[in-house]
Amino acid sequence: MSDVQESADAAIEETPDLEEVRDAWPALSLDERIEALSLLPPDDAEDLFVTLTAHEQVQMLQTLQPARRRAWLRLLDPEDAVDVVQELPPEEREAALAALDVRTRREVGVLLAYAEDEAGGLMSPRYATVRGDLTIDEAISYLRRQARDNLATVYYAYVLDDGQHLIGVVSLGDLFTAQQAARVRDVMQTEMVTVAEDMDQEQVSRLFSQHQLLAIPVVDKDNRLKGIVTVDDIVDVFQEEATEDIQKLGGTEALDEPYLTIRLWPLLRKRGVWLAVLFLGEMLTATTLGYFEHEIAKAVVLSMFMPLIISSGGNSGSQATTLVIRAMALGEVGMAQWWRVMRREIAAGLVLGGMLGAIGFARIVIWGTVTNAYGPHHVLIACVVAISLVAVVLFGTLAGSMLPLLLKRAGLDPASASAPAVATLVDVSGLAIYFSAAALILRGTLL
Amino acid sequence: MSDVQESADAAIEETPDLEEVRDAWPALSLDERIEALSLLPPDDAEDLFVTLTAHEQVQMLQTLQPARRRAWLRLLDPEDAVDVVQELPPEEREAALAALDVRTRREVGVLLAYAEDEAGGLMSPRYATVRGDLTIDEAISYLRRQARDNLATVYYAYVLDDGQHLIGVVSLGDLFTAQQAARVRDVMQTEMVTVAEDMDQEQVSRLFSQHQLLAIPVVDKDNRLKGIVTVDDIVDVFQEEATEDIQKLGGTEALDEPYLTIRLWPLLRKRGVWLAVLFLGEMLTATTLGYFEHEIAKAVVLSMFMPLIISSGGNSGSQATTLVIRAMALGEVGMAQWWRVMRREIAAGLVLGGMLGAIGFARIVIWGTVTNAYGPHHVLIACVVAISLVAVVLFGTLAGSMLPLLLKRAGLDPASASAPAVATLVDVSGLAIYFSAAALILRGTLL
Repeated sequence: MSDVQESADAAIEETPDLEEVRDAWPALSLDERIEALSLLPPDDAEDLFVTLTAHEQVQMLQTLQPARRRAWLRLLDPEDAVDVVQELPPEEREAALAALDVRTRREVGVLLAYAEDEAGGLMSPRYATVRGDLTIDEAISYLRRQARDNLATVYYAYVLDDGQHLIGVVSLGDLFTAQQAARVRDVMQTEMVTVAEDMDQEQVSRLFSQHQLLAIPVVDKDNRLKGIVTVDDIVDVFQEEATEDIQKLGGTEALDEPYLTIRLWPLLRKRGVWLAVLFLGEMLTATTLGYFEHEIAKAVVLSMFMPLIISSGGNSGSQATTLVIRAMALGEVGMAQWWRVMRREIAAGLVLGGMLGAIGFARIVIWGTVTNAYGPHHVLIACVVAISLVAVVLFGTLAGSMLPLLLKRAGLDPASASAPAVATLVDVSGLAIYFSAAALILRGTLL
Repeated sequence: MSDVQESADAAIEETPDLEEVRDAWPALSLDERIEALSLLPPDDAEDLFVTLTAHEQVQMLQTLQPARRRAWLRLLDPEDAVDVVQELPPEEREAALAALDVRTRREVGVLLAYAEDEAGGLMSPRYATVRGDLTIDEAISYLRRQARDNLATVYYAYVLDDGQHLIGVVSLGDLFTAQQAARVRDVMQTEMVTVAEDMDQEQVSRLFSQHQLLAIPVVDKDNRLKGIVTVDDIVDVFQEEATEDIQKLGGTEALDEPYLTIRLWPLLRKRGVWLAVLFLGEMLTATTLGYFEHEIAKAVVLSMFMPLIISSGGNSGSQATTLVIRAMALGEVGMAQWWRVMRREIAAGLVLGGMLGAIGFARIVIWGTVTNAYGPHHVLIACVVAISLVAVVLFGTLAGSMLPLLLKRAGLDPASASAPAVATLVDVSGLAIYFSAAALILRGTLL
C-alpha cells in the first residue's frame, strides 16, 4: 500500500493532481480532505465533489463560503441533491433547497418523499421519452433536443401513452441499428423490467445484476413512469450492502460510515453493544462449568483441552454461518432450501469433525505416551476429546447454518447470526458435550 | 423467503414464466435448471441463458444437442464467449471455438491471452470509434452505421489517431447536446480514465465507482485502444470480490462457486484446510495450559472463567479485523494509516475491555457473595478476571487490526486474518495473560 502512502503525501502538496487526490481520498482525514479540495483547481474540485458520497458532500459543503456552496449544490443531479438535503441538519435544509434552481428544487421536493434505501430514493426524475408513432430519424432528432434541454442521461428512451403510462422502452442501440423509416413502436420492447417506488434497494440491485441493464424505470401502481434508477447509482448500493453484511458478520452493528472517519464514540457504541450481549451469553460457560467443578477438580487434565474443543466448534460454526448468510444475500439459499443446507452441513460436520477428532486423538496418544503428561489414562482422554470434537463440530455446522434461516423466518436480519454469536452459542453447548462425554467414558477410571 | 419457495415450485410447472425462473434460478439444483430451461419458450430461454454466469452457461451447454449448443454459443458477446471457452474442459474448447462465427472466433482468440480477473479478460473488443474532424451530425450518422454493422455497445465513442492511439472520448450525451456544426474534437474529453490490460479487476471496479462511468477503455503501453470494460460486467466483479472477502473472513477458502451447487468434496476441502490449520494453532492452548496445571489444580475456580475470557478476546479481535479488512478493500485504510488505526484500537480496546471487565467484576462479586460459589477469595478472583479482560480485549483489538496490515505488508492477502484466525491467536495469548495475572494477584492466597 505504499502507493496510498505516496498519494496521501501528494494530496497535501502545493498543487495536487486530481487523480492522486481521488486515490488517496478514502484514507484522508476530514482536515486533509478540506485542504486537498481547496488546493485543487476549481474544475478538478468540482469533478471530484460530484462523485463523493452524500455524507462527504455535506462535510465539504459546510466548510465553503455561501456563494461557493450555492454553486456547488447546483452541480448536483436531483437524485444526488436530495441525498445531500437529507444528510443536512434540519435547520439547514431550507437554505440548501433555496440554493437550487427552480426546476431541481421542484424535483428534489418530490424525491424527498421517498426513503433513501428504496427505489424512489435512488431514482432520477430526468429521463428521455419518445412517442411510439415517431420514425427512427424523428426519434433521434427529438432525443437530441431533449438531451440538450433536459440534461437527461440517455441510455434508453421510454415510450409513454397519453396518460403517462409506460408502454415500451427502446435503447439507443436499438434506435441506432433500426431502419430509418421504421417507427419507434416497431422496434420498442414491451416486456420490461420495472420496479415499484418502494422496492428495497437490495432487490433493485439484484435486478440489475440479473438483467445486465443500464437503467430500470420506476413506476407507480398504475404503471405511470416516475423516474429511472441508473446503474452507476447501483454500484454504490452493492458496496454498501456488502459492507453492512461484512460488519454484521464480524459481530458489530453496521457502521454506516467509513471506519477512519466515524467518531470514536459511535464506533465504540456499535461494537460495545454486541460485545456486551455476547459477554452475557458467554457467562453461561461459567455457569455450565460450575456443574462440572468436581470433574475438573478430579481430572485437571480435562480443562487443558477445553479451549481446543470449543474453538473448533466456533470455527466450524463461523464457516457455516458465513457461507449460508452470503448465499442468502445472493438469493442462492432461502427457507425452501433448508433441508438441502442441513444435509450438506450434517455431512460437513461429520467429515470435518472426524478429521479434527483424528488429529486430536493422535496428538494426545502420541504426546501422552512420549511424555506421560496426561497420566495413565491418556488413551481414554484421547477418546473423550475425539468424540467431543466430532459432536461439537457437527453442532457448530448445524447451528451456524440453521440460525440465519431461523432468524430470517422470524423476520429478523440473518446477518445477526454473526461468527461471534454462533461461537458463543457453540461454546456453551460444546462444554456441556465435552464434560458429558468425559463423565460417561472416564467413570471408574479418572472420574 | 416463501416467494423463493413459490418461484421454485413454479419453475418446475408445465409452462414456467421467465421472471419466475430467473428469481428462483440461484436456488435451483442443476437438474431443476436443465428442466426449467427446456420448458421455457425458446426466446425466453435464450434471454435467460445470456445473463447466466460462464460456469452456469457451460453446465447448460453440456446438456444441449450440438445444433442448439452451436446456436446458443453464437448468442454470446465475445467477452462472454471467452469466459465460456475458458470454463470448458480443454478437449471441448476447439469444438466450441469452431461453433462461433468467424469474427467472434478471431476476437475470442485474442481475448484468450488474458487472465480472467484482469482488465484484458473483462474487456469487450467491440467499441465505437469516431474521427476527431467529423462534425457532430456526421459523427452521429457514422455511429449509427457502426452500431448496425458492429453490434457494439455505444455509450461512448472513442477518438483515435491514425496509429490507433486513444486521443479522446465523447459520450453520446455530449454528442446529442453539442451544436450540430461543431467538430468531435471540440467536444471530446482528452483527460480520460484508462486502464492497462493487466490491471486487476478489483482496481478496475474501484475506478468505476470513483468515476461513475459506464465504460472504461483498455489501452496497451503505447496507449493503443484494445477494448472497453463496461459497467454491467463490473457489477458481477463487485459481487465476486465481496463474496470472496466474506468467505475468507469466515475462515474458509473462497468457494468460487455457489454454496448449494459446489460439490461436497471441494466444499469440504476448502473448509477443512483452514479448520485443520486453526486446530493445530489452537493446540498451543493445551500446551500453554500445561504450564499452569498446578495453578488450575490448586484453584479449579480459575478454569471456570477461561472460556469467558478467551472468547471476549476473540470477539473483540473479530470485530477489529472485520472492520479493518473491509476498510482496506474500500481503499479507506492502507499501510500509511497504521498509526491512526492503532490509536483507535488502543482506545477501543481499553474502553471495551474496561466495560466487559466491569460487568465481569460485578457478576463474580455479587454471585460469589450471594452463593459463595467461588470461595472466600472471590473479590481477588474478580480482580484477576477484570484485569485479564481489559488486557485480552486490548490484545484482541490490536491483533485483529494490525494483522491484516502486516499480511498486506508481507505481500499476502489481508483477508487471511480471518475472524477464526485472530481468535486462535488471541486464545493462546489470552490464556497466558489470564494465568499470569492469577499467579501475580492470587499468590499467597489461593495459589
